[in-house]
Amino acid sequence: MNKPIIEVLDRNCRLPPPVWLMRQAGRYLPEYRAVRERAGDFLKLCLTPKLAAEVTLQPVRRFGLDAAILFADILLVPYALGQEVWFVEGEGPRLDPITDAGRLEQLKRRIDHSRLRPVYEAIAEVKDRLSSSVALLGFCGAPWTVATYMVAGMGSADQSSARLFAYRDPQTFAALIDLLVSSSVEYLTGQFEAGVDAVQIFDTWAGVLPPQELERWCLEPTGRIIAGVRAKAPGAKIIGFPRGIGTGIARYATDLPLDAVGLDWTADLDFVREQVQRRRPVQGNLDPLALVAGGAALDNAIANILDKLSQGPFIFNLGHGILPQTPIAHVEQMLKRIRG
Amino acid sequence: MNKPIIEVLDRNCRLPPPVWLMRQAGRYLPEYRAVRERAGDFLKLCLTPKLAAEVTLQPVRRFGLDAAILFADILLVPYALGQEVWFVEGEGPRLDPITDAGRLEQLKRRIDHSRLRPVYEAIAEVKDRLSSSVALLGFCGAPWTVATYMVAGMGSADQSSARLFAYRDPQTFAALIDLLVSSSVEYLTGQFEAGVDAVQIFDTWAGVLPPQELERWCLEPTGRIIAGVRAKAPGAKIIGFPRGIGTGIARYATDLPLDAVGLDWTADLDFVREQVQRRRPVQGNLDPLALVAGGAALDNAIANILDKLSQGPFIFNLGHGILPQTPIAHVEQMLKRIRG
Repeated sequence: MNKPIIEVLDRNCRLPPPVWLMRQAGRYLPEYRAVRERAGDFLKLCLTPKLAAEVTLQPVRRFGLDAAILFADILLVPYALGQEVWFVEGEGPRLDPITDAGRLEQLKRRIDHSRLRPVYEAIAEVKDRLSSSVALLGFCGAPWTVATYMVAGMGSADQSSARLFAYRDPQTFAALIDLLVSSSVEYLTGQFEAGVDAVQIFDTWAGVLPPQELERWCLEPTGRIIAGVRAKAPGAKIIGFPRGIGTGIARYATDLPLDAVGLDWTADLDFVREQVQRRRPVQGNLDPLALVAGGAALDNAIANILDKLSQGPFIFNLGHGILPQTPIAHVEQMLKRIRG
Repeated sequence: MNKPIIEVLDRNCRLPPPVWLMRQAGRYLPEYRAVRERAGDFLKLCLTPKLAAEVTLQPVRRFGLDAAILFADILLVPYALGQEVWFVEGEGPRLDPITDAGRLEQLKRRIDHSRLRPVYEAIAEVKDRLSSSVALLGFCGAPWTVATYMVAGMGSADQSSARLFAYRDPQTFAALIDLLVSSSVEYLTGQFEAGVDAVQIFDTWAGVLPPQELERWCLEPTGRIIAGVRAKAPGAKIIGFPRGIGTGIARYATDLPLDAVGLDWTADLDFVREQVQRRRPVQGNLDPLALVAGGAALDNAIANILDKLSQGPFIFNLGHGILPQTPIAHVEQMLKRIRG
């Protein structure tokens, strides 16, 4: 049976477009909250294959989405490199920060696959239980985005720690990025071997970089990941999501041989149609707050996206992760609107 | 004597370009911190003409900058509309939030100029003491940006309160924006009457809006402010600064009859040269963190900006406000690089 998402990644146009939602396995679902409570710790949930597989499948089961995306976290890569990672309830991730070359030296030279085995097992488990028309997606964070957490030791509003590190000591920062490139290649290759149909590279913080830094810390390393993964897994399908990249989306789409480009909710869709969708399938880009709001605002936003993008190869998605306060009825309203 | 900044706003090219820095009167200056301590409260500093004038003049005196920008705050407009505004040390502004139409009704229908008299007095005071070659700039926040604070009651990472308000109750939100448009026209006109040479409209949070919302809550209201001010103060010089607007910068520059467009540090300068500077003088856009970092990173960033923008009408500035941890020596290094 065909998987609509893979058809679009093969540059076909599907009407209605296939749909999945970033962070679709999440706190807005009561069944997720139940499993999350059972697991206790967030990291433990990611690293317990049965539970990770279960929450991965929940939104597909409930909504009939066209993809399952593996429940995991972009910080599993630093974790597999030996950096200490933990999650503070209600606050977010914490890491023992990489503050200088000496701290970078203390990381492993490559990821410890034994630490990631639960992820690969979860993939195998989901694959067994997933309908053959639903794509299974893996993912990793882009090196720049992962580095912002590794350097700051937490999330931050403006990623200033990593930006400042990169300005002050570009050589050490480049070594960190290189380590993340090779690690991401291994990690994504491991995900393909375990059975994913495609992967997404999340560059959540691409938008804070000036163009020269964007080139050096985002575009160039992401290009090496794509090439590295495809060298080991020929034809591997890869989606890129450079949140907030602004005008840089044109170069991102031109320079990187991606199978689709993910759009955040601020993307100008006329610009995108001309500069991105002519070259690559696109994915996006409903404002997660429009999904929270529902009603006419939601209907209008969906209609606008379908109007601008559904004539070409297109996967419907949000422009960022679904928010915890999203009413389930609004997700249903959205799917009805998309599927007619 | 000519004012280089005004010459550029008149579409002339100046080499070396004139320079000022957003938030140039600020905590990175010891002389500012001394006055700030004396004043105690931040709002009191804004509303005491002698002190506000003094801190406005400090960076001009120290660095020989080409503009003084009035020391004030974008939240003086809600304050003049009767909303309670206060500043929590080390945290930021707090306001009694506008949560619904009823709360909006309780605001004044127009700004209370008596609450803003200290601002106009500070302008007159600065003007008296300023060299005739230095431009005096006033400013206000753009309606969207000011509304995000009025609705949330504080600053926020993603402005979700205002975005959600606008989705859920666009009519009431439009009434709030309309009130801010008419208030901003009166406030800026008052500033011109008091003696400023030009004003800047800060749209710090323009970047979080999808294009349709950007049109409705940012471009259209800003256009009405420009028209309204010029109706009362013909030929009034106005700079717009839509931070993070991404691809929207092209429409911003085309649709709004501004005298210059301010660029944030992420702007793609090739795109800007083609889509913005051909139409309007531009201003920007050094990454404030490059100024913190100093050294080669700073020199490279400056060289790149001069290379891309100094052939046309251009004012050198930062791409966002100067950061408190900025070393004064780096500001001096920057000015030496720009002025050769």
